[in-house]
Amino acid sequence: MKRLFISIAFCLAAICSMQAQELANFNFGGRQQPVISPEIQGDSVTFRFRADYATYVKLSGSWMPNPYGDSIDMFRGANNVWSVKLPLPSPEIYTYNFIVDGVSVNDPQNILVQRDGTRFLNMLLVPGERTENYSEANQRGTVSHPWYDSAVLGINRRLTVYTPYGYENNPKKKYPVLYLLHGAGGDEEAWISMGRTAQILDNLIEKGLAEPMIVVMPNGNANQQAAVTLNIPNKPQPQMDRNAMQSMSDRQRNSYVVSLCEEIVPFIEKNYRVIAKPEARAIAGLSMGGGHTITASIMYPQMFDYICPLSAAGSATPEQIATLKKAGVKLYFLACGDEDFLFEGSKTLDKALTEQGLDHIFYVSGGGHVWANWRLYLNTFAPMLFK
Amino acid sequence: MKRLFISIAFCLAAICSMQAQELANFNFGGRQQPVISPEIQGDSVTFRFRADYATYVKLSGSWMPNPYGDSIDMFRGANNVWSVKLPLPSPEIYTYNFIVDGVSVNDPQNILVQRDGTRFLNMLLVPGERTENYSEANQRGTVSHPWYDSAVLGINRRLTVYTPYGYENNPKKKYPVLYLLHGAGGDEEAWISMGRTAQILDNLIEKGLAEPMIVVMPNGNANQQAAVTLNIPNKPQPQMDRNAMQSMSDRQRNSYVVSLCEEIVPFIEKNYRVIAKPEARAIAGLSMGGGHTITASIMYPQMFDYICPLSAAGSATPEQIATLKKAGVKLYFLACGDEDFLFEGSKTLDKALTEQGLDHIFYVSGGGHVWANWRLYLNTFAPMLFK
Repeated sequence: MKRLFISIAFCLAAICSMQAQELANFNFGGRQQPVISPEIQGDSVTFRFRADYATYVKLSGSWMPNPYGDSIDMFRGANNVWSVKLPLPSPEIYTYNFIVDGVSVNDPQNILVQRDGTRFLNMLLVPGERTENYSEANQRGTVSHPWYDSAVLGINRRLTVYTPYGYENNPKKKYPVLYLLHGAGGDEEAWISMGRTAQILDNLIEKGLAEPMIVVMPNGNANQQAAVTLNIPNKPQPQMDRNAMQSMSDRQRNSYVVSLCEEIVPFIEKNYRVIAKPEARAIAGLSMGGGHTITASIMYPQMFDYICPLSAAGSATPEQIATLKKAGVKLYFLACGDEDFLFEGSKTLDKALTEQGLDHIFYVSGGGHVWANWRLYLNTFAPMLFK
Repeated sequence: MKRLFISIAFCLAAICSMQAQELANFNFGGRQQPVISPEIQGDSVTFRFRADYATYVKLSGSWMPNPYGDSIDMFRGANNVWSVKLPLPSPEIYTYNFIVDGVSVNDPQNILVQRDGTRFLNMLLVPGERTENYSEANQRGTVSHPWYDSAVLGINRRLTVYTPYGYENNPKKKYPVLYLLHGAGGDEEAWISMGRTAQILDNLIEKGLAEPMIVVMPNGNANQQAAVTLNIPNKPQPQMDRNAMQSMSDRQRNSYVVSLCEEIVPFIEKNYRVIAKPEARAIAGLSMGGGHTITASIMYPQMFDYICPLSAAGSATPEQIATLKKAGVKLYFLACGDEDFLFEGSKTLDKALTEQGLDHIFYVSGGGHVWANWRLYLNTFAPMLFK
């Protein structure tokens, strides 16, 4: 073949290392020293932010004693780069932002951003034993966003589905499924973004610690088609007074759980290579999703052999627990932080399970109602599934 | 069944309408009036931003005559909410940010955010004829992120794959494939995020204007495994002087195009239900990806019957064009804006194609090297494919 003569190749070689496609991003000239932030060096971390005209710049981080109020002053240095150097917090994923003259600002040097509900937050991953499964593995599964039509809820709804490494290359293999539910304010992207589910499963499976499994992350807001970032209006909900709510049937009150068990589970079992049996189905959820998990286990006691309510308060009647026990439970993993505002509720459920003699694990961690705990719980219970 | 008693349901009912999962987001109290931004009313749009201690707040938007320098003053109103009301720009997707005491800030009220390279930008979608395919359709395809192992590039690499609505429900149907390539600074998410590819294809297919097709969006940076947001280090590249570069073979120089045609195309044809024939393969790309498109068409003249370089400068020898013509081309769609810095290069390619008698369309739009054009081009050529 003749030597190609593609002039664009040369034209673009010069700008190939740049970072974006519209011209604003072609940072011609490069007059300024690049600002690096955050920078982890040994057991310290430095945050830097350039602000030419600011009166003050502060740092607020989720590792601070009161992450919702505390902030630390940053100091103006050369070229109006403000900075602060701190002792490195213990290994975990944290979020942080700057406060510039009273306004919250993300770190423009840090491409790592998580979305928690309606907020985009910069992320700091401190490496260590606790976080070793939160970074990218070498063998990675596929994350997809299929849509299912819900007759129960009357809308088309978006799912997140993780299929493990090897799914494409093993066309005859069938897999167990974990249904993983988010909390209030979350959506079908919460466990993937804040929860690092793909990374945690990839690492656990690559290390041989967890069975290769499919993970299905639905949207748990019954009137919502998809995450708010897709800008699809919610389905209008009828206004209801207390009497009207009281007169709803269990199926109406729990319409999302009905859609999960009667629509999403069949959708997955039709469209993916799945072992369609209770011993190959797990359900887990955090906070509101923990409530959905408990509800599903009560309404559909035959469906899931693995049940994991996380940071959830809930209770069930002795009869409901007896029914569940009779249906057969291979793992009941209840987890909560001892500073969680729902810890008392989790203790109540633990007590009820104990009284009815339903074998279970009550995993009590430190900390409160935070993603640091939900990642830890997923990383802890996923290896116990389907074994 | 007995009435469920799930105390969490009541506990959470109160906070269900909130927007996130960690406690900071449970905006207990709600003392402040909500700030709405941006707000489109008739033919005006109002931007609002609360800043208690700022000296000044400005607005910068991609619709301004010089989007990389212009800004408009905003004015402080009640409760320290700064605002400005502007005539609504013509229908298009724009990006914008605020400038607070010299610092660029995203609009915290606007959940719609696009990532362009390393920058997260708020989005303003002005409805109208030009943008009617940029919003969510009713019938939506599935977007997936599978990984393929590249022996050519020596790394595991992330793809974005769109399968059209109906793919799951028609298990015997096979589909044609569009390979859609991004520009310098982009990655496998660029066409989905800035390009609105899923929305455009969903709408075109739902309206019967385009054939149902699979769209494959690879990462075109040969040393990169995935988008920078995944935080996977790039593969180190050997330093090369001009002599070393000159002595590279075409395959070495164009290793990404080799991987595309010899690895990605077979990966897709193995793992998806695809019509594996030239008449069911299209390739299109913007800027650097337009260069990749031209290179692929020259190196693999038998592979693609539909070829669409967008905002690209490139040329091919008369022999190369003659070979391509002989191989058979069903559509050669060349597009460029008349203010694009690569417009002269596009004209050169148009001239060469004309001289060699290769039937083609030279679609000249207004505007420059911007996503507004690349969305327009996709919306324009997708209906011409596979017919």
